[in-house]
Amino acid sequence: MTTDHIVIIGGVAAGPKTACRLKRLAPEARVTVIDQDNLISYGGCGIPYYVSGDVSDEKELRNTSFHMTRDESFFLNAKGVEVMTRTRALAIDRKAKTVRIKNLDTEREESLSYDKLVLATGSEPFVLPIPGAELPGVYTISDLHKAIDIKEQLAKGLVGRAVVIGGGAIGIEMAEAFTDLWGVETSLIEFMPQLLPNILDKPFADMVATHMREHGVKIHLNEAAQSIEADDHGRARKVVTANREIETDIVVMAAGVRPRSRLALEAGLQVSKFGIVVNDHLQTSDPDIYAAGDCIEITHLVTGKKSLAPMGSLANREGRIVADNLAGLTSTFEGWIGSFIMKAFEICAGGTGLSLQAAKAEGFDADAVISAQSDRAHFFPEQSVIPLQMVFDRKSRRVLGIQGFGPMGDAVLARIDAAAALIAKGGTIDDFSKLEMAYAPPFATALDALNATANIADNKAADRLRTVAIDDFMVWMNEPDTRPDWLALDIRHPAETKAFTEKFGDRWLAIPYIEIRNRYREIPTDRKMIIICDAGTRSFETQCVLDHQGLKSLVLGGGFNCVRRIGAAWWPS
Amino acid sequence: MTTDHIVIIGGVAAGPKTACRLKRLAPEARVTVIDQDNLISYGGCGIPYYVSGDVSDEKELRNTSFHMTRDESFFLNAKGVEVMTRTRALAIDRKAKTVRIKNLDTEREESLSYDKLVLATGSEPFVLPIPGAELPGVYTISDLHKAIDIKEQLAKGLVGRAVVIGGGAIGIEMAEAFTDLWGVETSLIEFMPQLLPNILDKPFADMVATHMREHGVKIHLNEAAQSIEADDHGRARKVVTANREIETDIVVMAAGVRPRSRLALEAGLQVSKFGIVVNDHLQTSDPDIYAAGDCIEITHLVTGKKSLAPMGSLANREGRIVADNLAGLTSTFEGWIGSFIMKAFEICAGGTGLSLQAAKAEGFDADAVISAQSDRAHFFPEQSVIPLQMVFDRKSRRVLGIQGFGPMGDAVLARIDAAAALIAKGGTIDDFSKLEMAYAPPFATALDALNATANIADNKAADRLRTVAIDDFMVWMNEPDTRPDWLALDIRHPAETKAFTEKFGDRWLAIPYIEIRNRYREIPTDRKMIIICDAGTRSFETQCVLDHQGLKSLVLGGGFNCVRRIGAAWWPS
Repeated sequence: MTTDHIVIIGGVAAGPKTACRLKRLAPEARVTVIDQDNLISYGGCGIPYYVSGDVSDEKELRNTSFHMTRDESFFLNAKGVEVMTRTRALAIDRKAKTVRIKNLDTEREESLSYDKLVLATGSEPFVLPIPGAELPGVYTISDLHKAIDIKEQLAKGLVGRAVVIGGGAIGIEMAEAFTDLWGVETSLIEFMPQLLPNILDKPFADMVATHMREHGVKIHLNEAAQSIEADDHGRARKVVTANREIETDIVVMAAGVRPRSRLALEAGLQVSKFGIVVNDHLQTSDPDIYAAGDCIEITHLVTGKKSLAPMGSLANREGRIVADNLAGLTSTFEGWIGSFIMKAFEICAGGTGLSLQAAKAEGFDADAVISAQSDRAHFFPEQSVIPLQMVFDRKSRRVLGIQGFGPMGDAVLARIDAAAALIAKGGTIDDFSKLEMAYAPPFATALDALNATANIADNKAADRLRTVAIDDFMVWMNEPDTRPDWLALDIRHPAETKAFTEKFGDRWLAIPYIEIRNRYREIPTDRKMIIICDAGTRSFETQCVLDHQGLKSLVLGGGFNCVRRIGAAWWPS
Repeated sequence: MTTDHIVIIGGVAAGPKTACRLKRLAPEARVTVIDQDNLISYGGCGIPYYVSGDVSDEKELRNTSFHMTRDESFFLNAKGVEVMTRTRALAIDRKAKTVRIKNLDTEREESLSYDKLVLATGSEPFVLPIPGAELPGVYTISDLHKAIDIKEQLAKGLVGRAVVIGGGAIGIEMAEAFTDLWGVETSLIEFMPQLLPNILDKPFADMVATHMREHGVKIHLNEAAQSIEADDHGRARKVVTANREIETDIVVMAAGVRPRSRLALEAGLQVSKFGIVVNDHLQTSDPDIYAAGDCIEITHLVTGKKSLAPMGSLANREGRIVADNLAGLTSTFEGWIGSFIMKAFEICAGGTGLSLQAAKAEGFDADAVISAQSDRAHFFPEQSVIPLQMVFDRKSRRVLGIQGFGPMGDAVLARIDAAAALIAKGGTIDDFSKLEMAYAPPFATALDALNATANIADNKAADRLRTVAIDDFMVWMNEPDTRPDWLALDIRHPAETKAFTEKFGDRWLAIPYIEIRNRYREIPTDRKMIIICDAGTRSFETQCVLDHQGLKSLVLGGGFNCVRRIGAAWWPS
């Protein structure tokens, strides 16, 4: 128990969480939260849904679940916490244990003394260093005021066209917000060759991009915004890339965030490029100063390396840990693994742990398999295919990451959350294979899609299954000469294969799955089969048969269920 | 690799799974499956959905996801597995390594020799030893033929009334099947004082019962079926209990299952009351005989005790393990934890691990908390409350079980599956608190409902939170004199509390949450407060404030969100 004065700088997520938990643990503590904004304790992740209109009023983002607005008087009366808004922390004097603060309305400065200090200063959007980045009409998604401003313009009918710079989660959510309800003609520019770089591998990112294009978003990959140009009124009106100029009424820059660590740095605290350095108790290099939220660096538990993790969900967890420690409970925060999920129109995509690309870059002996199983019993009326990818280390059989794609709803979420539990514990392929997912036909398949994916990984790790990556298959389809020894072996139903054999001629051999055991002699012995079905499971079975006959083959993992979602220009019409 | 002859007795779930996996691992093996039925390899868990009409044709339960029917010729051509249907295994001669089999059509008997034998004989429904149990019109849900028969009668309009005996998952699913599409007037009789005994605790079972009653199912708890009486045609027409006689056109007996272990027993294999005894490799006491599926006893990983686990999902996992071992891979099956989920009309309920009642019976120092949080951000349009219960051991802080209730969809599933991953690994409250669930407003709250439940358990385990069980609260509401020192402290909004203060007078004190810190002096010091809000979170905060003032209180965990779902006759109209 403490009667100390605890000062918390930052009033959005980690700050208020620390304050409220602390007051429950130590009711006699004096807790002061300061924030330079007048709007505090809001659900920042809800901004795209406020802009889209799903959330009608910004107050809803600041309300509790029991419909009270989390403003200064709420914190004072309900929580016993004093909040000073429109108050900027200018400097920390660690020796005197004071924070120099300035009231942004009165301009008055004063010193606030603390016994313990908590830095919850958050992150700030990265503004690309390009001409025009600071023009009126260029927005970052960083606070509620900007969101209110954007929505007002939409509501006034001032926005017919929008450009979003950045194909991460926020960029995608904002592109949906513009397009879906408001009918804004939206372009999304991403510097990398795929959406959601680093967090999804290309096949899954391409599924998201294809779905967004189907909903009218123009997506330009591999393109950097080079400048933003103004109209005669000095307002942003055009985004220029190497390939095109896009006229627009609004620009959203969603190019990532940087930790707000200046205050910590100037106070002489240890700060890395990922943020304020903290120990397991979220204590900075000054034991009287804690830090939590977007502004700290935390350990990625799969790589063991430090990283920036600007997630509202983590900020809340961290705030609780800080409060525990301030109150004398020795809670620890070990790190994160990168669980995420996002909605894009009618689909969702998510993941946890490392992508294949990231795992390889980290030096793992990484491999991956893709499944394309149903989310519920295939005989149940409303079932959908949910492609899942499992990334694993071949040597240790440790699962390094899971990715999923599916229709809106919680089917993908269920698999990501279950995977997160195991990945954080260093779970192996076998742990995933044995994971006892709940089953009934309206909810899952008897062998859940996640278990099935682990079984595929088990076969791959043992080299019983050899696959061709979807990306490589796509290259071959577009440029057949790149792999002259390949022959597609399409084992689907003849009604499905007909258009393919007609279009692709001697690159395409169709033998129905059910006939393989009797007709394998028709398969050429001097070429490598790319075995194709819808999900990849029949293909694996076929590979076992071909192996037994000494025939060479690779399985298209995830099959045409995935290829259809990625989209292919070569698909027979 | 093996060229042995593998004989598998049983062709529904574990048997075919073993056969198919084995042929992939060891294509040269000769695999024969025998089954006394002519219909094999069907999704037995789908029977209620076939009866309801969600699944239109029984063939769909026997089809693959790629629309081929899993009959004898499918297994032969696609899988290379010989299936002998309408063939009963009469006896095993372990010394000669033969199975005596009988063709049920020709009545011819013969001996089938095996190198390895697999028993996948499944379970059989328990038929209550009551008069009339064997009458025509009394059905168990044990095979596809009976399901087809039931559905034919429904389709012909012969069923206006139905009685289901047994309030487990199958009984509930069948009651829904009768009521929902066919409009059959359905009564469900359960011997125990709640539905889903042993797997859900009473509050959650009561939520299911209340929802089913709202959908027209008459539920009679604490009632045993004493006899079934026939009409003049000798057909079951009436079910008699101690309290009533129910006229009916059909009776479904869903009173649990027993392992089919007679064959094993007669062959001298070790068999317990839970089924055929197997080791971690699913090998019976004869190393040449394996067993899998409903017919074996397996270890419950939370209790460490042997148990019967008749689940289609486990049968598939076990079949894979047997095949691995037959093929020379040393896969193991350690046990189960009891993950389940089920649909009842528009809601679902599920769980994993132990119920509080079961945990106490097992001798754990068991305690539990209930949460009533939203499944997604409370500002997101389509959010719902999903009550969760966490059962934990106070000494070790190990989480022993999770239960959940919510609207149809996969929100509850996601929390159950994530919990299953941790519970199987011996996860503690802290593991659940730190579990990195994926977050975005359309999918979860920043601090997921499961994390929040763990945090509540953390507070309870540390005695910071003291709760009153919902059951005890309900008793007090019905019989106030049972706890004369209690006073309800209702901290909800005045508009919500008005009807309660009017109805309950001096048992009901209303002080809004926001005013507690200023008005706690109005609270009597000589009585114990039962603090009430909707979810329990404001109540905990209030308890912290009252504790600080030396006032006595208990929190109604889960709050009125749970009470409303359970239903209360005393609720002010």
